[in-house]
Amino acid sequence: MKETIALNEVVTRDGFQSEKAFIATHDKVALVNALSQCGYRVIEVTSFTSPKAIPMLSDAEEVMATIDRNPEVVYSALIPNLRGAQRAIDAGVDMFNLVMSVSESHNRSNLRMSCAESSAALSEVIDLAHQHNIRVNVSLSTSFGCPIEGSIAKERVLDWVSHFAQRQVWGLSLCDTTGMAYPSLVSALTQQALDLFTGTLTLHFHNTRGMGLANVLAGVQAGVRSFDASLGGLGGCPYAPGATGNITTEEVVHMLDLMGFDTGMQLDKLLSAAHHLTQLVGRTLPSQLLKAGPITQLHKAPLQNH
Amino acid sequence: MKETIALNEVVTRDGFQSEKAFIATHDKVALVNALSQCGYRVIEVTSFTSPKAIPMLSDAEEVMATIDRNPEVVYSALIPNLRGAQRAIDAGVDMFNLVMSVSESHNRSNLRMSCAESSAALSEVIDLAHQHNIRVNVSLSTSFGCPIEGSIAKERVLDWVSHFAQRQVWGLSLCDTTGMAYPSLVSALTQQALDLFTGTLTLHFHNTRGMGLANVLAGVQAGVRSFDASLGGLGGCPYAPGATGNITTEEVVHMLDLMGFDTGMQLDKLLSAAHHLTQLVGRTLPSQLLKAGPITQLHKAPLQNH
Repeated sequence: MKETIALNEVVTRDGFQSEKAFIATHDKVALVNALSQCGYRVIEVTSFTSPKAIPMLSDAEEVMATIDRNPEVVYSALIPNLRGAQRAIDAGVDMFNLVMSVSESHNRSNLRMSCAESSAALSEVIDLAHQHNIRVNVSLSTSFGCPIEGSIAKERVLDWVSHFAQRQVWGLSLCDTTGMAYPSLVSALTQQALDLFTGTLTLHFHNTRGMGLANVLAGVQAGVRSFDASLGGLGGCPYAPGATGNITTEEVVHMLDLMGFDTGMQLDKLLSAAHHLTQLVGRTLPSQLLKAGPITQLHKAPLQNH
Repeated sequence: MKETIALNEVVTRDGFQSEKAFIATHDKVALVNALSQCGYRVIEVTSFTSPKAIPMLSDAEEVMATIDRNPEVVYSALIPNLRGAQRAIDAGVDMFNLVMSVSESHNRSNLRMSCAESSAALSEVIDLAHQHNIRVNVSLSTSFGCPIEGSIAKERVLDWVSHFAQRQVWGLSLCDTTGMAYPSLVSALTQQALDLFTGTLTLHFHNTRGMGLANVLAGVQAGVRSFDASLGGLGGCPYAPGATGNITTEEVVHMLDLMGFDTGMQLDKLLSAAHHLTQLVGRTLPSQLLKAGPITQLHKAPLQNH
């Protein structure tokens, strides 16, 4: 029996929110529908933030109402506050993804609140979700380092893990918001987080400094069985113009499948969706696998190299 | 005491040989001179192949004669045959890097010989090197998979490791010629190779499918303490146009330093050399670190992200 690892797709939320041109609603729906056939556990479809704050995702209700739902997939959305939570409940979202930063300065600059204020606001949303039997995942931004403060003491992250464990959320994500994680830190932090939290612990990595899949490997070795990733590697880093953001779903799946894990994912369908995504956004995506193909794809033409 | 990991630079040989425009000899020399101050154990300066076969490196003698040598650095060159070996001896090369593929079909298409013929030819070069007290490293191409044949049985690779261990070469490199290695394969193969070979075992990875640094991590965990890499990630893959080739030196160093290893490398000088290389080749290089900077480089400007 192979061990199972679950994949959570973030491209239509995390990827699309930083695009410059609006992606048409029917294109978003078609992509979610295609992704729904690929084997994900969770698809983060959209965000119920104010349409003024993130105009790219102003069609959240319409997207949620139009997609064809696969009963095997959990359709989640980013929920910034109670108002967004109520919209998401009305839209029939399966899971709330709530976000706060473990770094005071990042939380203030990103959410204009202290960590304590964020936590209090999230608590109200968690209560509402639990009343409606909606799963909650809390994403802890900058868990592996803050671009403003620098390194973050493990204890700060673990205190928040304990806090939300007590709030009995379904899942917690340790997010490497700007690609500052490295393998030994990933091992150390996630091993302790797994001791404190018995729900679903997800790792959310960026490939900003090339260490994305090395961090996934370290996470897998530490026992994590759930990873966020973005189709084609879509998504940038606001602190490093031109740098990549999220790790690439098809590359994570390709690596984990080769290592003998059961991701339940269909790589051919993923690659086909990633090709389509390239056309949709009109530019080459960070995905290396999309250029080179899986290692099972053999060649005839020989050239000099070693 | 930190554990030491050695870095070997391949950019002026492996990187430059596949460039389309000739890099001026004085630019090559200036780059080698800059790299000589960065902390490498080995710099593979050039190749003593026929200038007809690789015109990009036709200035091998002049480059070797002109560089300022740092006595701490081993200056190696790729040696294809006895004729090249004699040229390299005359040019004062410190170490020969010999290449053969462990895949029959790749060796035939790349070197136009069977593996046995290559091995016999290499043996003569090894004898000559030993007569001249020149170190020898043998690079075993396609050790982690062949783009023509597919997967390569571990036993085939290990037989060649044993063979060259008996020939008492200074070093052996297991080369992932087209980016087909994955972490569990790296662990399994290198652990056994380390049992068979007590010299310097080097891993040579490509990032063709995004797994480059994950494979470095697996290699480090298996006990390998020597890695090839290319400044800026320069170098392509002949089987996947547009895909990246060699892993990026500055990203390897950045990761290993963060993990607490002593690479002896000076990251700031490396990044400065990589910036210069970008100007030299006139295009953006695969290096993510070059775009984003090290994680120690903090920021003021905040933007939305998680």
